[in-house]
Amino acid sequence: MHKVIFDTDPGVDDAMALLFLHRHPEIDLIGITTVFGNASVETTTRNALFLKHAWNIAAPVAKGLGETLNPDRSHVGWPTGIHGEDGLGNIDVPEAIDMPLDPRPAHRFIIDTVRANPGQVTLVAVGRMTNLALALRDDPEVAALVKEVVIMGGAFDVPGNITPAAEANIHGDPEAADAVMTASWPVTVIGLDVTTKTVMTRAKLIDIAARGGASAKLLSDISQFYITFYEQHVDDGMIVHDSCACVYVVAPHLFRTRSGSIRVLCGGIADGQTIQKPYGRLFPPNPWDGLPSQNACVGIEAEAVLKLIGDTLANGR
Amino acid sequence: MHKVIFDTDPGVDDAMALLFLHRHPEIDLIGITTVFGNASVETTTRNALFLKHAWNIAAPVAKGLGETLNPDRSHVGWPTGIHGEDGLGNIDVPEAIDMPLDPRPAHRFIIDTVRANPGQVTLVAVGRMTNLALALRDDPEVAALVKEVVIMGGAFDVPGNITPAAEANIHGDPEAADAVMTASWPVTVIGLDVTTKTVMTRAKLIDIAARGGASAKLLSDISQFYITFYEQHVDDGMIVHDSCACVYVVAPHLFRTRSGSIRVLCGGIADGQTIQKPYGRLFPPNPWDGLPSQNACVGIEAEAVLKLIGDTLANGR
Repeated sequence: MHKVIFDTDPGVDDAMALLFLHRHPEIDLIGITTVFGNASVETTTRNALFLKHAWNIAAPVAKGLGETLNPDRSHVGWPTGIHGEDGLGNIDVPEAIDMPLDPRPAHRFIIDTVRANPGQVTLVAVGRMTNLALALRDDPEVAALVKEVVIMGGAFDVPGNITPAAEANIHGDPEAADAVMTASWPVTVIGLDVTTKTVMTRAKLIDIAARGGASAKLLSDISQFYITFYEQHVDDGMIVHDSCACVYVVAPHLFRTRSGSIRVLCGGIADGQTIQKPYGRLFPPNPWDGLPSQNACVGIEAEAVLKLIGDTLANGR
Repeated sequence: MHKVIFDTDPGVDDAMALLFLHRHPEIDLIGITTVFGNASVETTTRNALFLKHAWNIAAPVAKGLGETLNPDRSHVGWPTGIHGEDGLGNIDVPEAIDMPLDPRPAHRFIIDTVRANPGQVTLVAVGRMTNLALALRDDPEVAALVKEVVIMGGAFDVPGNITPAAEANIHGDPEAADAVMTASWPVTVIGLDVTTKTVMTRAKLIDIAARGGASAKLLSDISQFYITFYEQHVDDGMIVHDSCACVYVVAPHLFRTRSGSIRVLCGGIADGQTIQKPYGRLFPPNPWDGLPSQNACVGIEAEAVLKLIGDTLANGR
């Protein structure tokens, strides 16, 4: 069993990833931490509670940060054209959910939970890296106690999506992402190099909804607005970015990774770009030297990943 | 016939490219302009005159710039470990060559020659982009009069060579390269994405030297030091970066290009990185918008390119 804390900003594809984590038999979802990104942290936290309730998820929800680690960065608007005004595809999520939050802020929840389960916790982070970076800042020793960090974010050998250089999760808090990538814990980065190859068609989602009961039907309803957005990018269906990071936890053999230290550009026209120095390549001294090698995903067996997602979502426990 | 001005910093692979331009029957080499990079501009200019004399090249040599366009950039040392103390593989090039230089600085030679041959001149630039940028600054209208600009430089979907982000020619003067890439003339960029696939083996070079007479023998002598350097990167032989740009002029069908505006990062840890916004991809407003589309080479028929180079070098006219 993989003990997972899911750091998330639901968010439509976050919702799919959450249901995947909840339903996969080899995953023990022990916490949900929220962060800004696809919507404000107030909205993403409300949405996490909404999904916890709707899907009867036991894991506690801890509310995280609402702005970038570096307070000098200007606030950016929410992508309501992709995730809807409510962050879940305009399905009319109730204004408030009457369920308790964990009393701790997300970064403290992460620190406490990792310290209580040393060497056992996988952090799956699919929003801005702000909570993880603050956990590292408040308790640097926690890095050595985490089993693995799996990130959805970045773009290595392909263009970004929010700018030609940068992917949205990393671009949304570059300083936090650079702190996470350069820390001494094992990070695997699932970026646009591979996620853009995983397109779940409307037909597949209809099939999942038919097989997976009310929970899967709700997921399908949430996803329709997002699919309509993606019609300008892909033929028919949604790119399941965040679910790819969750699949990696249980099926890393479906991914091909490249080792090497990773930096995130902070500032300038390529703000938020992820750049890896491939392990073993020789260069004059440079700012990638002396940092831990991390894994950047550069290949994916997309059909097998989509099948695993579909089968997991469709099968309640 | 292609009228070519060769902007160069000889440089070992520059020497091969120069002999290619001189010997290819469809190229009319009408000028050689020198720039700093592989060595100081004093050395590269001396070397251009040395090769002009040794190979009986008619084209005039005009001396160009010795430092970056932006005078605030600090001076960087010369790569004597790659090109030798003399810039030509330590073959003991004479201190001075008793041949006249064109009286004009390189950028003025470029402007005058382009204006005298409107729509007919191809600029092949394989060193820092400093001379071309200064030509644009002094006479912006010249851009519309150039037939084509072909650059050896940059790295788009692959790591750099001087840093994990940047290729040496562009890294050596990023402000100049950004000016050249964003100007309203048609630019094709032959970068590490393709040049690193063209490895001329020692065996091929020996064959060329045997077939190509004294000129090819001199080229082979010049290249030995560079091949020894490349032994840490490739099995046996030299990457013929600069010759690839020359081949593109006469055989563009051997390359696959991608269209889209190109920016060069100036400053920061990825200083000198080249980033293209692929044509037709949708992004929020960004610093690539409204700029001319240029061609980035992303594919090459390496064996055919190497064969064309070998056959051209081996066959005197």
